[in-house]
Amino acid sequence: MTSSRPAGPRQPTLEDVARSAGVSRATVSRVVNGTRNVDPEIQKIVQEAVAATGYVPNRAARSLVTRRTDSVALVFSVPDHHAADDPFLGQVFTDPFFGRIVGGLLTVLRPRGVHPVLMLADSEEARRGLVAGLRREHTDGVVLVSIAPDDPLPVLLTEAGLPAVLFGRPPTRSPISFVDVGQQAGARLAAEHLLARGCRRIATIAGPSDSPAGRDRLAGFREAMAAHGHPAAVSVEGDFTQEGGERSMRRLLAEHPDTDGVFAANDLMGQGALHVLRDHGRRVPDDVAVVGFDDSSAALASRPPLTTVRQPVEDMAAEMAKLLMALIDDPAQQSRSVIFKTTLVRRASA
Amino acid sequence: MTSSRPAGPRQPTLEDVARSAGVSRATVSRVVNGTRNVDPEIQKIVQEAVAATGYVPNRAARSLVTRRTDSVALVFSVPDHHAADDPFLGQVFTDPFFGRIVGGLLTVLRPRGVHPVLMLADSEEARRGLVAGLRREHTDGVVLVSIAPDDPLPVLLTEAGLPAVLFGRPPTRSPISFVDVGQQAGARLAAEHLLARGCRRIATIAGPSDSPAGRDRLAGFREAMAAHGHPAAVSVEGDFTQEGGERSMRRLLAEHPDTDGVFAANDLMGQGALHVLRDHGRRVPDDVAVVGFDDSSAALASRPPLTTVRQPVEDMAAEMAKLLMALIDDPAQQSRSVIFKTTLVRRASA
Repeated sequence: MTSSRPAGPRQPTLEDVARSAGVSRATVSRVVNGTRNVDPEIQKIVQEAVAATGYVPNRAARSLVTRRTDSVALVFSVPDHHAADDPFLGQVFTDPFFGRIVGGLLTVLRPRGVHPVLMLADSEEARRGLVAGLRREHTDGVVLVSIAPDDPLPVLLTEAGLPAVLFGRPPTRSPISFVDVGQQAGARLAAEHLLARGCRRIATIAGPSDSPAGRDRLAGFREAMAAHGHPAAVSVEGDFTQEGGERSMRRLLAEHPDTDGVFAANDLMGQGALHVLRDHGRRVPDDVAVVGFDDSSAALASRPPLTTVRQPVEDMAAEMAKLLMALIDDPAQQSRSVIFKTTLVRRASA
Repeated sequence: MTSSRPAGPRQPTLEDVARSAGVSRATVSRVVNGTRNVDPEIQKIVQEAVAATGYVPNRAARSLVTRRTDSVALVFSVPDHHAADDPFLGQVFTDPFFGRIVGGLLTVLRPRGVHPVLMLADSEEARRGLVAGLRREHTDGVVLVSIAPDDPLPVLLTEAGLPAVLFGRPPTRSPISFVDVGQQAGARLAAEHLLARGCRRIATIAGPSDSPAGRDRLAGFREAMAAHGHPAAVSVEGDFTQEGGERSMRRLLAEHPDTDGVFAANDLMGQGALHVLRDHGRRVPDDVAVVGFDDSSAALASRPPLTTVRQPVEDMAAEMAKLLMALIDDPAQQSRSVIFKTTLVRRASA
């Protein structure tokens, strides 16, 4: 199993740097590994010698001293059936949400020279194996994005003492850091916008009831509708995919053909709803107005472009990276949560 | 800069395993690191002792012995202006192409316990820094996806002696392994399909002329048109984005209003073309038939759904991972290329 790189020109060593700087190997090691309490003058001399010799610290050796790997795990935890449905995991990674998370993380991690390591957990076994693997120091910490119902990972990560930050609040109360948006407030924005433009028979295509975001958006929608005199607004449960949005919209049109406004709990479902409305000859927004949630690329690609509740996913991902870096620097600190505001982005669909 | 994990229960050590198994530390080390030539009986005894003690090998320490990190870099190399246009790098990572690559790689890497480390190179400086960083052993090898014109990375990686596999052929001939599709043959499929359905004034929205895929698809289209008696088919250059497809389609309609067939060199541009055709009251496919290239999620999300030339991106990414694993196991082996076939996927747009 062992292999080595083909021999090239000799690489400068720690000894070469020590000789060039006129200091001990231990001093070079302390500077290279960023240990505190090194005299700034000495630091400067060593850094110049590093530059002069072209010395490249061996990462594995440095990692033994600092116990830092300069990488963080970006874990996507998904329902078990996902992998069976799609051998190429395409559904997870082609959701525009995935790219927005990656983009946001990189804005914080790249300037610090920290790399995200992609991991997928799509079964109970994978989730447990992942935590064991993370304990073997593949990474310094974990960014967790979970769409798995009642995901045990937040608890497992906390128990393992691994620095971790979650996207969205954990399904059960646990002392783990997370970022989220005001989900209920966002859903209220959508309902109130539909009401304000005159819709009176407003329904929602909700997210899965086993996801915190699905439950919260439904609760916010219902609350706003009730506050405006509509305590029995119709809801059908979707699954956050475009196909699920199409199925739910067909059901709504069959069971409630007089629906004149729809709040889809994410943009992909909103895009699906628009397709079905067009196929049924309903004009959007004149006959049926549609509001989505996320402000993902799907909202812009829709026709008409989708009015939606913007979730600042890129900013949230950047904040996750900042929280994680702080936790890695000081693992004893309390878990924290940061809640972002949603805004309504008006386009042509409502 | 140094930090350590909070003290927990004492972790079992290599010594504990050696004591439990009744063998030397060196023997435990050889088994744990997967060195060949260890007696199978001894291997079994040590593995049982590892399980019994709950020993978790320290990855950094193991890496010093094996020089393997069990991670590979997944590098996206993009034109310099990308980052300036979009502080969150969203364009790169929300392109459905990105998710398909990741999904395909994971089907091969996950069963081997190898993790992809995401890296982005969006400037000349970033590209050179990346190669220096990779030499510091962050990873065992590199999967490179480049959309940067005349990207120097294939040459830099080869010169650095790093195991690497490229998505798409390199812009200049260099001894680097790659996977690709028959780009020209794919474009011919598109042109011939439009001709066969009776289109006579067929234009193409081409990809950027500084990308091999853009050039090859244009060449294949022209060749097929010329072979069928249309040596002067119209082309306008696009940039592989949806907005670029919209701009190009508007230009085509203005300059060549009698166009009755369009080959868009990728699905995102095809999706943009469909939007503009609808806005101009042209029926698709009756007035203008449209064929895309890729068979990405954009083709399915379009209305009407896009007839397209399928590029098996997931299979190609899986093959990249296999080629890379083989190169890492034997860095002395010759570079290889694997060319996949394209197929025409018929939907409603042509």
